[in-house]
This record gives sequence, C-alpha cells and structure tokens, in this order.
Amino acid sequence: MTDLTKLLSIVSLPDPGAEVEVRRRLDQLTKPPGSLGRLEELVIRLAAIAGTCPPTLRDPVIFTLAGDHGVVAQGVSAYPQIVTAQMVENFLRGGAAVNVLARHAGARVVVADLGVAGPLPRHPQLCAHRIAPGTADMTLGPAMTREQTRRAIEIGISLVEAERARGADLIGTGEMGIGNTTAASAIVAALTGGVVESVTGAGTGVDSAGRRRKIDAIRRALTVNQPDPADPLDTLAKVGGFEIAGLVGVILAGAAYRLPVILDGFIASAAALVAVRLKPEVRSALLAAHRSAEPGHARVLEALGLEPYLAFGMRLGEGTGAALCISLARAALAVLTEMATFKSAGVSDRVDPPGFVP
Amino acid sequence: MTDLTKLLSIVSLPDPGAEVEVRRRLDQLTKPPGSLGRLEELVIRLAAIAGTCPPTLRDPVIFTLAGDHGVVAQGVSAYPQIVTAQMVENFLRGGAAVNVLARHAGARVVVADLGVAGPLPRHPQLCAHRIAPGTADMTLGPAMTREQTRRAIEIGISLVEAERARGADLIGTGEMGIGNTTAASAIVAALTGGVVESVTGAGTGVDSAGRRRKIDAIRRALTVNQPDPADPLDTLAKVGGFEIAGLVGVILAGAAYRLPVILDGFIASAAALVAVRLKPEVRSALLAAHRSAEPGHARVLEALGLEPYLAFGMRLGEGTGAALCISLARAALAVLTEMATFKSAGVSDRVDPPGFVP
Repeated sequence: MTDLTKLLSIVSLPDPGAEVEVRRRLDQLTKPPGSLGRLEELVIRLAAIAGTCPPTLRDPVIFTLAGDHGVVAQGVSAYPQIVTAQMVENFLRGGAAVNVLARHAGARVVVADLGVAGPLPRHPQLCAHRIAPGTADMTLGPAMTREQTRRAIEIGISLVEAERARGADLIGTGEMGIGNTTAASAIVAALTGGVVESVTGAGTGVDSAGRRRKIDAIRRALTVNQPDPADPLDTLAKVGGFEIAGLVGVILAGAAYRLPVILDGFIASAAALVAVRLKPEVRSALLAAHRSAEPGHARVLEALGLEPYLAFGMRLGEGTGAALCISLARAALAVLTEMATFKSAGVSDRVDPPGFVP
Repeated sequence: MTDLTKLLSIVSLPDPGAEVEVRRRLDQLTKPPGSLGRLEELVIRLAAIAGTCPPTLRDPVIFTLAGDHGVVAQGVSAYPQIVTAQMVENFLRGGAAVNVLARHAGARVVVADLGVAGPLPRHPQLCAHRIAPGTADMTLGPAMTREQTRRAIEIGISLVEAERARGADLIGTGEMGIGNTTAASAIVAALTGGVVESVTGAGTGVDSAGRRRKIDAIRRALTVNQPDPADPLDTLAKVGGFEIAGLVGVILAGAAYRLPVILDGFIASAAALVAVRLKPEVRSALLAAHRSAEPGHARVLEALGLEPYLAFGMRLGEGTGAALCISLARAALAVLTEMATFKSAGVSDRVDPPGFVP
C-alpha cells in the first residue's frame, strides 16, 4: 500500500499540451466554435487531467465507500443506523440508485466497508476494510484517531491503485453512511470557518427539529474537539468519518495518477476539500458532477472553485450524481471523437473575417 | 395527412392517474422520498404525459427539420446560407453533433427538408418536403404565406404520425437553418411583446456588428409586417420559417398523441410558444431540455412556464440539447424500473413518525 506522504509527493499539475490539442480538434468539428458549451469544457477537462487527447473512457469506476457515525446517537438522521449495512447489501445486489445509474453510464461500482457498524456477509464484490464498527460520537471527543484516519485514507488510495491496475481510467466518488451529512457539515464549517447553520441541511430528510439537533451536535463537536483548520488531517479525524477519509484517499490517488475525479455530492465534496487542503494541486483533477440540495454543498464548491454540471436538487449520495455526470462525459467524448470536421464533411466554415456589409 | 384544425381538436390534458402511480412507486424505492430531485420529476412528467406507468422509452426520435431564411440577405449570420444544405448532408451521413449525441442517447434522427435553399441529393433517409427554396426576406414582407405556413405545420404533423406508426414513443425537436435565430427572436418579440434587443443574441456567433444587424432586421420586419400577436399563425407566417412551422406541427402532434416532447434550444422553444398559443393544453406535453446561451431562450421558457434540465451554455441547435436530455430521461426511467424497493431489499424505512429524543 502506498503511504499518504509518498502519494502526496507525486501529485503535480497536468501538462497543458493535451488541452491545447483538444481545443484545436474541437474547433475543426462541424459546429460553431464553443457552441456545445460545457459539453466541450467537460471533454477539455478530461483531456487536460489525463494528459492525453483524446482522453479515454473505457473503464470508469465509482467508489462507493461506507461507514457509520457515532454521532447518530444525537438523533441527527431520519433513518436508523442499520440502514448503512442494509444499503451496502443493496449495492452488492445491484438494486440501489447508484447501481442503476452506473449501469446507465457504463460504469462499475466498487463497494467498500471502511467502518460500517452493522453485520455484513462476506461477498466477493465487497472490499472489506472495516477499521471499526462506526466512528466514536464526535460530540464527546474525536470521531477517529489520527492513526485510523490515515489508515482510512490509505485504504482509499489502495482501492484506486487496484482498480487502476485493472484499467480504471476515470473515478467517481460515492458514499453511504447514516449520519454522514452531519460529519460533512462539521468538516466544512471547520475548514471554511463557515457558520454551522448555513452549511447544515436536512440530509436524507430530517424535519426542522432534526436539523436543529444536527446543528447543535456539530456545534458541540467543534467546541469539544477544537479541530485545527490549518491541519486538515486533524479536522478530518475529529469530526469526519471512515468513508469520508477513504474518499480523501480516493481523490488524492485520482489526482496523483491523473485519473479525472468526478465528485458526487456534499459529502464527497467535503472530502475533496480536505484533499485540496492537503495538496492544492489536487484541485486540477476534480470535476463537480452536480450541486445538491444540501445548503453546504454550494459553499464547498465555491471553496473548491468548481462549477457543477447539473443542478437537479439531488440529495441521495452513493455516487448517483457522479454516475449521471459520467454519462455526460461519455457524450462529451463522443462529440470529440465521432463528429465530422468541416473538411471531412465539406461544410463551409464561417465567413471570416466578419464584417459583412449588406 | 391530418389537418391542423382536426389535430388541434384532439389535444387534451393528460389523465392524472399515471402520475399518482409513478409517485407511489418512486416512494417505495430504496432512497429517501424525492432525493433524486429532478430525475424523479422527469420520469413523473414522462408518465404523466404518456398516461402510462411506467412510461416507455423504446424508440425516441429527434426530428431535425431544415429550412433557409431570406433574411440572411441582411447579414444576420456568421455562416453562408449554403451551410444549411451542407449540414443536412452531414446529418444524413451521421457526422453532425446531433447524430453523435442521438447515438449516445439511443435515439433516431429524422431529417426533413422543409425549405432548404441549396441543392440536396435524393437520399433514402431524407424526408424531402421542400415548400420553397428558403423563405422570403421578412424585412421586405411576410417570410411565408399563410397557406405555406399551414402546409409546413401539417408536414410536421405527418412526420410525427409516420414515426409514431413505426413505434416512436418520445419526441425530440431539432432544427437547422442559417438565419433562424433571427426568425425565432422575431417570433418571441412579437408574441411576448418583448424588447427586440433583449431576445436577440449572437446566434451561431456573429460579432457585435452582426448582432446589431439582426436587431435592426427584426425591428424592420416587425414594422413592415405588423404580425398580430393574437393570431399565432399570422406571426409565424410573417416572421417565422419553414422548419420552425414544421416544428410547430411536430410539437402539436406530440401533444395530441401523448408523446412527451423534449424541446431543444431557442428555436424549438419559439416554435413551442406558437404551438401553445394555438392550443394552451400543449404545454402539458412539453419538457425543456436545456437553457441555451441565447438571451431570448430564458424569456421563452419563462413564457412557457418550463424549467430546463440543463444549463450548459449550448447554442448549436440541431436537437443536440434534446439528445442529451433523452439520455437523462433514460436514466430517470431506469431508476423507476430497476431500483429495489425497501421491501424487496429488506432495507429499513425512515423512523416515522419523526420526533427522535436523544
């Protein structure tokens, strides 16, 4: 397993050559320059990150990492904790939303247990890396030890390394963990200095009393733990979670190995914020699939400087938004590789220089 | 061929039963209710329009209608008029953006010549219905006669009827016509009473002098022709175009036969506005694929009361936005039909009634 320090040392900014090449090709295609808008920008980003033109999209993989959260004891979720384990089984059977949307996008889903509390059967498709049966309750002390946090990150790195060896050429992030919007809100509040209320939403659907309990729990966790915003690992350990730390590793490894990383929703974006604080160059490998219904998500995307592709009011997680965006990425790549050029199609290019006088 | 008057008489509002059924099914799936946001709303709309749950999406068809515009003599486009015919040939060879994106979405493209000016070869895939080699210059008088307009609409109706007989179960709209953003802006200005400048953009990419020529041409056309906003056919005839009138027919037929109609960009939406003014019930069959970079598009969507799914800054037309949206519609339908239910997956539903006390 590659350790975190070594991995961080190999993250670097991509070569601009592929971007120049993809822009040149796009402008030869039978369409006014730039007229496919963000679809063009999307394939430019894929090429720029991978450093190849055209980029490949043979084997996109969504990493759906699961973990439980001690903070659920504070009544922060509309669902019981056992749902995390039940949903992991649902992922393994292919019946969850992320499975359906990944199939639609032609992507694989890799399911990993980083710290689920409930029992899980052995399953050939389950990456069983449980560090502990859920985090500790962050309102009483650190959710994880620093050592556990580092281990979770390195598991995320190893998952990417294994899939990259099998051919993965694009990464989507996903997660499952009852209570994890509470952890994500706490991370974002701590790292951005944001007001807790403004980055805390209804998650999977708590009522207003539930949201007040979330806000209160986060405030207490920040007071009790005093996470150091200048030390992203400290913040992640104290108010994060196993699956979130795992995603930090997934994201860092994506950036290190030049695999485009499509962020899913609020929780994945909180993990990305930790990764970028660890190594700012990571940002250049990230794409934001969508802006979710969680109020904190817009805040994180702003902090990351990312413009989401979709704004569908989704708030499910699992990697569902990433899957939809992978489908858009396939469309964008098809434009680059399948369209005729002005020359090949015998289509007249624009009247240049402009300045028509009727 | 079904005539316009007869077709208008069979447009009616859909039965609400399918919508109730699809909402009920969505809430049994293993996700918090409503947590897939607009993806859920999209499949609800498809079911509501078709009147069936689940709706089908076996054979979506994009109608890409082409026509030329006499107003190009006023220097309103960055491209020469011959590009309309050249692009029709590109569509028939499968090399244009709409072909690529339709393949990605699993949709067919039906290409029709309603009034192209340039020569076109006979081709088994080309629906050859040329009414005239381009419209007349609207700055000098009506672009089309009322009779030509009605004919173009009825051709659009007949195209849908033919594809429906082959199994088409969803319609995407598309168009090609150098100069047709000028016609669309004129229609929107006339029907909404909007200021010409605010609904006139760069089209395929004219410079600021070109945009001023467009604005000036539209103003002169409106002054010369005095289209009657209370008479949508009069407006369409005087400042519209053959492919736009054809799309009015496509849209009306979609609504009449309960086929969901996914509008592409500005021009298709201008056609939809005419269709809705002819028969307000048509609105219930429409979905807006995206909001384009054309400033008038937001105005038309507002007039239609439609919220677009994508905002990608696209401005190509052809049906490219509709194709992307068809792919999203497939994802939405897959969610409805492929996801496990709480019961089938053995997943605990939310703790109800809420009101957890820690």
